[in-house]
Amino acid sequence: MAINFASDNWAGAHPAIGEALALHSRGIAPAYGTSELDRQVERRFCEIFEREVAVFFVATGTAANSLSMAMLNRPGGVVFCHENAHMREDEGGAPEYLTGGARTHGVRGVLGQITPETLDEAIRLFPAEFVHSGQPMAVSITQSTEIGTVYSLDEIGALAETCRKHRLPLHMDGARFANAVAALGTTAAEMTWKRGVDIVSFGATKNGCWCAEAIVVMDPAKGRDMPFLRKRAAHLFSKSRFIAAQFDAYFSDDLWLRNATHANAMAARLATHLRHAPGARLAWVPQANEVFAVLKESTAQSLREKGVFFHPWKVPQDAELTLGADEGLYRFVTSFATMAEEVDAFAAIVGT
Amino acid sequence: MAINFASDNWAGAHPAIGEALALHSRGIAPAYGTSELDRQVERRFCEIFEREVAVFFVATGTAANSLSMAMLNRPGGVVFCHENAHMREDEGGAPEYLTGGARTHGVRGVLGQITPETLDEAIRLFPAEFVHSGQPMAVSITQSTEIGTVYSLDEIGALAETCRKHRLPLHMDGARFANAVAALGTTAAEMTWKRGVDIVSFGATKNGCWCAEAIVVMDPAKGRDMPFLRKRAAHLFSKSRFIAAQFDAYFSDDLWLRNATHANAMAARLATHLRHAPGARLAWVPQANEVFAVLKESTAQSLREKGVFFHPWKVPQDAELTLGADEGLYRFVTSFATMAEEVDAFAAIVGT
Amino acid sequence: MAINFASDNWAGAHPAIGEALALHSRGIAPAYGTSELDRQVERRFCEIFEREVAVFFVATGTAANSLSMAMLNRPGGVVFCHENAHMREDEGGAPEYLTGGARTHGVRGVLGQITPETLDEAIRLFPAEFVHSGQPMAVSITQSTEIGTVYSLDEIGALAETCRKHRLPLHMDGARFANAVAALGTTAAEMTWKRGVDIVSFGATKNGCWCAEAIVVMDPAKGRDMPFLRKRAAHLFSKSRFIAAQFDAYFSDDLWLRNATHANAMAARLATHLRHAPGARLAWVPQANEVFAVLKESTAQSLREKGVFFHPWKVPQDAELTLGADEGLYRFVTSFATMAEEVDAFAAIVGT
Amino acid sequence: MAINFASDNWAGAHPAIGEALALHSRGIAPAYGTSELDRQVERRFCEIFEREVAVFFVATGTAANSLSMAMLNRPGGVVFCHENAHMREDEGGAPEYLTGGARTHGVRGVLGQITPETLDEAIRLFPAEFVHSGQPMAVSITQSTEIGTVYSLDEIGALAETCRKHRLPLHMDGARFANAVAALGTTAAEMTWKRGVDIVSFGATKNGCWCAEAIVVMDPAKGRDMPFLRKRAAHLFSKSRFIAAQFDAYFSDDLWLRNATHANAMAARLATHLRHAPGARLAWVPQANEVFAVLKESTAQSLREKGVFFHPWKVPQDAELTLGADEGLYRFVTSFATMAEEVDAFAAIVGT
Repeated sequence: MAINFASDNWAGAHPAIGEALALHSRGIAPAYGTSELDRQVERRFCEIFEREVAVFFVATGTAANSLSMAMLNRPGGVVFCHENAHMREDEGGAPEYLTGGARTHGVRGVLGQITPETLDEAIRLFPAEFVHSGQPMAVSITQSTEIGTVYSLDEIGALAETCRKHRLPLHMDGARFANAVAALGTTAAEMTWKRGVDIVSFGATKNGCWCAEAIVVMDPAKGRDMPFLRKRAAHLFSKSRFIAAQFDAYFSDDLWLRNATHANAMAARLATHLRHAPGARLAWVPQANEVFAVLKESTAQSLREKGVFFHPWKVPQDAELTLGADEGLYRFVTSFATMAEEVDAFAAIVGT
Repeated sequence: MAINFASDNWAGAHPAIGEALALHSRGIAPAYGTSELDRQVERRFCEIFEREVAVFFVATGTAANSLSMAMLNRPGGVVFCHENAHMREDEGGAPEYLTGGARTHGVRGVLGQITPETLDEAIRLFPAEFVHSGQPMAVSITQSTEIGTVYSLDEIGALAETCRKHRLPLHMDGARFANAVAALGTTAAEMTWKRGVDIVSFGATKNGCWCAEAIVVMDPAKGRDMPFLRKRAAHLFSKSRFIAAQFDAYFSDDLWLRNATHANAMAARLATHLRHAPGARLAWVPQANEVFAVLKESTAQSLREKGVFFHPWKVPQDAELTLGADEGLYRFVTSFATMAEEVDAFAAIVGT
Repeated sequence: MAINFASDNWAGAHPAIGEALALHSRGIAPAYGTSELDRQVERRFCEIFEREVAVFFVATGTAANSLSMAMLNRPGGVVFCHENAHMREDEGGAPEYLTGGARTHGVRGVLGQITPETLDEAIRLFPAEFVHSGQPMAVSITQSTEIGTVYSLDEIGALAETCRKHRLPLHMDGARFANAVAALGTTAAEMTWKRGVDIVSFGATKNGCWCAEAIVVMDPAKGRDMPFLRKRAAHLFSKSRFIAAQFDAYFSDDLWLRNATHANAMAARLATHLRHAPGARLAWVPQANEVFAVLKESTAQSLREKGVFFHPWKVPQDAELTLGADEGLYRFVTSFATMAEEVDAFAAIVGT
Repeated sequence: MAINFASDNWAGAHPAIGEALALHSRGIAPAYGTSELDRQVERRFCEIFEREVAVFFVATGTAANSLSMAMLNRPGGVVFCHENAHMREDEGGAPEYLTGGARTHGVRGVLGQITPETLDEAIRLFPAEFVHSGQPMAVSITQSTEIGTVYSLDEIGALAETCRKHRLPLHMDGARFANAVAALGTTAAEMTWKRGVDIVSFGATKNGCWCAEAIVVMDPAKGRDMPFLRKRAAHLFSKSRFIAAQFDAYFSDDLWLRNATHANAMAARLATHLRHAPGARLAWVPQANEVFAVLKESTAQSLREKGVFFHPWKVPQDAELTLGADEGLYRFVTSFATMAEEVDAFAAIVGT
């Protein structure tokens, strides 16, 4: 039996998503995002965010992040994000490419999170109008973070305050947006614009869709050029309604929150097991759907042999973590598709 | 009753595609194009092209074209294509953007087709090593063309000969590749590398998938950098297997050719009706799944009122076509989903 | 004796320019455009343009044009210029590259000039918000034009009116700005912002400097990002004061107008000779410092053998010009360094 | 009396350079780098480098670095350089922009230098073919470094060995190339290709020219596309011969080495003074023409008031340097124009 903790990307699609795609396969509809279904789902986003927002569908999280950066870009622009942010380390240079050469500046911070202090210090390295350094253009935070932690609402608000001080827009990479909302027991509105977030990469792919991401711009006027940015990056889908259809199902009956709540619960269950396992220990406390654990290499090997999929992870520069000679850091990701039985089977293998 | 001749993009997805997506929604699979299904579909491409090819899935035709150009790009590069080619007029500047500033040079020619003579003349405007003009980098033809005509195999071979003379690679924009194969009664191999084509944008979206396009590189060694080009353009899908699944169904039982043959037949049926209609005439003989007709404006208006969707079209510069004061040029596109009843209902309206 | 009509780029530098460079070689001065001399020359530009302008020194005309376009750029942007404009045909793709993929759209027109009608027609090909075409971003005219003609002040005003109607900024490629001012007997202010021009590539290199060009932005607020655009394109000079020094001399005692007036007079003298030459005829009436003539090939050959440098020229698509089988079109450029004796020696050779 | 230790960019031009410019202002010559003088200076470069090299003149060091990177670029490309390298911190994003989005990866190391170990470790962060990270494309070292130190020939050779192991080309940012050659008492050939360097940004501006830089490609075949790269970046000068003229004078009678030797000697003299000054101490031992010192803030203030120009400097992350509460790190740069009297006057002020 294969047990998947490798990635939430390894999961397929939730049955409700599949049904929606099948349903909307029939009939005709205007192309390139102009169908009634597209409009309807855009309105649904406005309801969820409790305000008028501009919504742009794309199909990969990297597209959502990179086009957000392209929208916020300034000549010689620098975006500030955590030194291990996905857009900085795992997108193959897409933000740099699609902005025509903007740069990320890695901000340090424990647990995958930047702080108002580390952020402020970093921004100050780029004095206003000092042409040789380039100019700050945006700040980006990841919620939940790359390493399974979650910014509190107050932390987001404090970072937004620092952004405002420097007149910089705040972007949220929400590849696991739903997991963070569920973890905080809050709402999309509270976690974003009510705390000062200006633009969100709203991810749904990892949480049950097969390819549905949206760029959500809080002030629609600022998204005026996004249709052209998206088109010229080849990310406008002709049969855009199939992305809309996924979101339609995703939001129905709160599927998005149910999926995320489930994935988080599975991660918590996994963490409980790991806390008491002989050959493993938690690297830090998980807050969403990713669990990081230190395993003895023999334990890791044994898990692999028994059909458990998971990835080794580079120890973050700022993690307060010491590994023994025969130990490694590993990531375990849960998803809407993870079953309690899988988690428990894993626990049995890991030796509890 | 709505009758769709607006675009093959307005059609949904073929039921077999929907079933394949549902089937592959279950279970887990490695992400980012590394699954067994991805591998299997790549092998299927090799069979269809009757040789080892490198295959890269993307989700929009504009991505396929633009990344092909990025692969072929040279500094100061110029690609030669028909003056009304899709990549030149309808992709919002994506080829220019994703190549970092390459240019298209419009080559003239009747019926949407360039000829060895007009191509050669255009290339000669860019003398080798004359840095002020930039340097030729590629030639791109569209098969079937933007206006529903089809290059014969000999014509493709002759254009490839001109390319070889100037040491330029030949790209084929195959947004409607299947329609051309069906129209010529030939094979993918015959229509491409056996006649000198080096790289193909292989489209399946318009012909029954919802988002499935592939860049097919005849000499795999030349595609070495494509994984990086695709990733940094944000066109690598995490759940790539869903594109693979669409192709899997698309190639099963020759669905791709059956769909295209049907669409072409519907276009021919439509053309027959138009030949004898009082308020309309064919602009030129259709060869694939697009019919262009000159309509009296009153006829066009009447059609719209009765629920027929179709688009007006700019008269191509080189078309041998004269319009009366009360006439317009219009495009009618058929697809896998077009029913004979629709065509005949249209004919009844148009006045035959 | 070599006679140079090949290009105003073949000339060296005016003695006054050389002296200024020598003078400012001594002593120290802050770098990167922050010296007192830089400031002083910027103020001189304001006097010449009779208003507060923002001035940015660069060293090539292609940089001035391309950075102007980068400043005016919008995503998917299209700039409208004459089909044979320098930025479109002779800058090796620099505008496309430095804008990250903007496109030029060639507007037709006789004598190297676009008209309000041809411009309006071209802009209308790009309907507002039609994402597939991209979006208009600017209009660029060349003054004097590539083929030695000059827009009248009224013509400039009329084009600016068309720009305003479409809310597009108007750029002037002034590689031969001084020649046009001299030809019209007008002022820099009259020829630009008083007629609706928003930004100018102000060239001085061809007219006696060795590398001095300036981007002049009429509304300084709109040039806010230019320092970053220039820096990241590597066009900010550390010893910027040497560009300033050239301009300083260029403007002293109206050297710039004297040089241009002289070059224009030499062109007129050349034209008078050609009007009466047996083996040659004027292609069209020259208005600045370029003369285009139709020569019998035997005449051209004879001129070359006798040490006259000049270039063949492609017959412009819209020129009302018919060449005989043994004839060719040729360009003759005069400059500040052209001597009346050279012109007359040429006339003797050409057969008057 | 103003004493300039602010920058070698604040110096003007050596009289011999000014004379050469005046000399070549006369007469005509083909434009865009095709003159006999251009050819002659290119041959001079071959002599100096003791092999056939390809040489491309540009006018700013940032252009030389950025175009070198553009030449070496690969999709998703990453260049490895010291974390405080000029191209990483002081070029306003030009390398990222002119490569269309390549990234620099900062390698740590004391004294402004990377080591084979830190370099190897950094490259290993980018596993071959791991598309999410991008791909290594080049290594760049600065000689002399940003902070006035010099790599030994053996150190360069060892770094080149690491490059070869990873099949990466080695670039040398030689903004202060001559100072390093003089400091090591070696030759251009020994310091570059004989130790494995593939391409050099050869700077002459700081060392006595006013704008003369060259990209020197050791294997001319690899420079094939550089003319197009340079043109489309707007860095091809029409009156290119004026750059050639500067180099011509720069190489005559070893002016380049004499200037550098002088500047280095002035720096050494300055260091000797600082070693014994009460309110100052050397931050590290200078090896070329830059001296870094720790000053009491009161001393720094006093120096400024007495007309000494110099810049504060950020303490490098890896410097083994502790500052007192009332101390700051400062940079003092000498040049061909620095006089011994200036240095001694400075010493008097600083309190020796």
